[in-house]
Amino acid sequence: MARIVQKFGGTSVADVERIKHAALRVKREVDAGHEIAVVVSAMAGVTNRMVELTSQISSMFDAREYDAVVATGEQANAGLMALALQDLGVQSRSWLGWQIPIRTDGAHGKARIQGIETDELSRRMAAGEVPVVAGFQGLGPDNRITTIGRGGSDTSAVALAGALKADRCDIYTDVDGIYTTDPRIVPKARKLEQITYEEMLEMASLGAKVLQTRSVELAMNLRVPVQVRSTFVDDPGTFVVSEDKIVEQQVVSGISYSRDEAKITLLRAADQPGVAANIFGPLADANINVDMIVQNVSEDGKATDLTFTVASGDLDAAVRLLEGAKNDLQCEKLIADSGVVKVSVVGVGMRSHAGVAKTMFTALAEKGINIQVISTSEIKVSVLVSEDYLELALRALHTAFGLDDSPKEES
Amino acid sequence: MARIVQKFGGTSVADVERIKHAALRVKREVDAGHEIAVVVSAMAGVTNRMVELTSQISSMFDAREYDAVVATGEQANAGLMALALQDLGVQSRSWLGWQIPIRTDGAHGKARIQGIETDELSRRMAAGEVPVVAGFQGLGPDNRITTIGRGGSDTSAVALAGALKADRCDIYTDVDGIYTTDPRIVPKARKLEQITYEEMLEMASLGAKVLQTRSVELAMNLRVPVQVRSTFVDDPGTFVVSEDKIVEQQVVSGISYSRDEAKITLLRAADQPGVAANIFGPLADANINVDMIVQNVSEDGKATDLTFTVASGDLDAAVRLLEGAKNDLQCEKLIADSGVVKVSVVGVGMRSHAGVAKTMFTALAEKGINIQVISTSEIKVSVLVSEDYLELALRALHTAFGLDDSPKEES
Repeated sequence: MARIVQKFGGTSVADVERIKHAALRVKREVDAGHEIAVVVSAMAGVTNRMVELTSQISSMFDAREYDAVVATGEQANAGLMALALQDLGVQSRSWLGWQIPIRTDGAHGKARIQGIETDELSRRMAAGEVPVVAGFQGLGPDNRITTIGRGGSDTSAVALAGALKADRCDIYTDVDGIYTTDPRIVPKARKLEQITYEEMLEMASLGAKVLQTRSVELAMNLRVPVQVRSTFVDDPGTFVVSEDKIVEQQVVSGISYSRDEAKITLLRAADQPGVAANIFGPLADANINVDMIVQNVSEDGKATDLTFTVASGDLDAAVRLLEGAKNDLQCEKLIADSGVVKVSVVGVGMRSHAGVAKTMFTALAEKGINIQVISTSEIKVSVLVSEDYLELALRALHTAFGLDDSPKEES
Repeated sequence: MARIVQKFGGTSVADVERIKHAALRVKREVDAGHEIAVVVSAMAGVTNRMVELTSQISSMFDAREYDAVVATGEQANAGLMALALQDLGVQSRSWLGWQIPIRTDGAHGKARIQGIETDELSRRMAAGEVPVVAGFQGLGPDNRITTIGRGGSDTSAVALAGALKADRCDIYTDVDGIYTTDPRIVPKARKLEQITYEEMLEMASLGAKVLQTRSVELAMNLRVPVQVRSTFVDDPGTFVVSEDKIVEQQVVSGISYSRDEAKITLLRAADQPGVAANIFGPLADANINVDMIVQNVSEDGKATDLTFTVASGDLDAAVRLLEGAKNDLQCEKLIADSGVVKVSVVGVGMRSHAGVAKTMFTALAEKGINIQVISTSEIKVSVLVSEDYLELALRALHTAFGLDDSPKEES
């Protein structure tokens, strides 16, 4: 017998039929003898409509009222899911953030969970009842409803699993797991049985977009094993776990990419103290996040070329800021390029395994792909390449790191 | 300076534009120096959709989950209205049933309000803030959301006005007041400036359908003056008040009617003890409400004709029940007739004024309208007539009791 939190995302509970189907997935675990708590999102689209209503009503933004409005979608679905479970003969009741309570700080619209009181939930679960908890919401110190940011129901589920000391947290969604890379681009992509929290964080922030980054960080901190799985397919999904739970670790677990990249190059900027501050200070002030940065060693000690990347949507604003500050920057020319993508190989195994960068650069060179910028972390190597080469680069790297389908049979 | 509760019904807050318009009505009262609390319904149609969802999800009916689901419509509108008021520069915040709290009993789906804690609301109102209270909902003894029955937001508003010791409760709706009779049938119908609670109760239960009956009863008990007025027109509406507040009382205030009537006649039923119980017992057990009852004195002391009315929708079930019990009833024949309407003249003035029934019967007789059944209460006289004569009867009575438009100028 295990204690499991099952979380259903917006597409998994998008209408009456899907809620009933999700309830069957819950009943199956109950029938297997497990203790279950359920966390539900709003029906897909409902929260967007609520957000739209608030913005149509008022140009002033009172996050406390925003929270009262947008939290209604999860509230309704919690009640509906409890009814669906009862209809299947499963004892169940809905729980809203304020009823448990799930205590948060007072940062309405983006609150952080501070504590969850689980005594009554635990007692009821032990007696065979399934609590259905409204995701995305909590109770602030002002006794008002808070929400914890878009996509926050993943975080609600992980926090609840941690508080309940659950054996795992199953995130039911519309994909059946985490893949070695995007299967729409690389047909030989494989579903991973396991991935570490650290790898998942690198994959998610690089665009894998399956789990909310915050929920993965929380799962890592609370050491909650998470399973990403499909509501609509029966196969097991991908387990996101601690590194020490994975016996045989691949060097590289996956290849991720991001199209949301743009490159800015400052040609022959003055190579003297304070210039970097002149460049990145105004960008930070304007809330523009800079990702990769490369500065060449200057040949004459006077001027240097500086290249960095920003999110595509920030490119115009960044260029406008820098053009305005051109005098301070003392650079000859500013070049903007939005036709780039970032490709990253990710794997905790590379900590103990040299040669990943070499394998990567060789594989790309063999296909004639020019690397524009490189950045590395402990468990990933990222390169910026022309967007024309995205698919080619992904396929080449997927093969080079032995990730293609059925590699064991082939080797 | 007055303290006023303003309640906006579903059609008055049906979309973003209407919420903004309603907010302007609130701002006007605030600008006039009044202390205001607002009660809102859900957007028209939203509660119906939520009810539909719960019935699609589950054939089992857990009223506690039903309440959690259907209460979301008022919650969202409370937040949206607070935002709309803030946008107009009016200090405002939303209040949900559990936040105030509005305490109810545990009868989920049809709870009764037991008490409203108003200290904080009062303090904030005195400081110029406008609380926007979600109608229709409260907090049950089980710490869960309760709802107080369909149309319950009128009752929420009146209860809040009573607890706040408000000077009046304005019910904003899509009609501009209470009329002497249905203006669609009688063009000379006049809007009443005032009507007593008792008259309003008779009008409402007879089909006027402007105010929920329960809210009128509560207003009468709490002695809260209620104004029924239009959200979309600026004129004052109709005040519903105590009898002692009305200086010059008409004998008859209005003529109401109900099409939702059906007549059942039992010919030559045995005239002996226990027969009435045999007839009305099974109907009561089947939750069929019997309204008017007439029993003729029997000529021979053995058999009598018995006539009574039920709601149209109950006619088939009533006939089936009575046919099944024909032996017990010992009657010769059962006649059902759904082609009847009930027409009533209502007025507290008739307590001290004889001759109302005579005036009524004479007016109908002059038009050749046959009266099938008569029933009376202290402040109303009702007759059952063929539905063919509804319009004619209303016009004749409206004129006979001096209710036609501008009667003072004419007299």
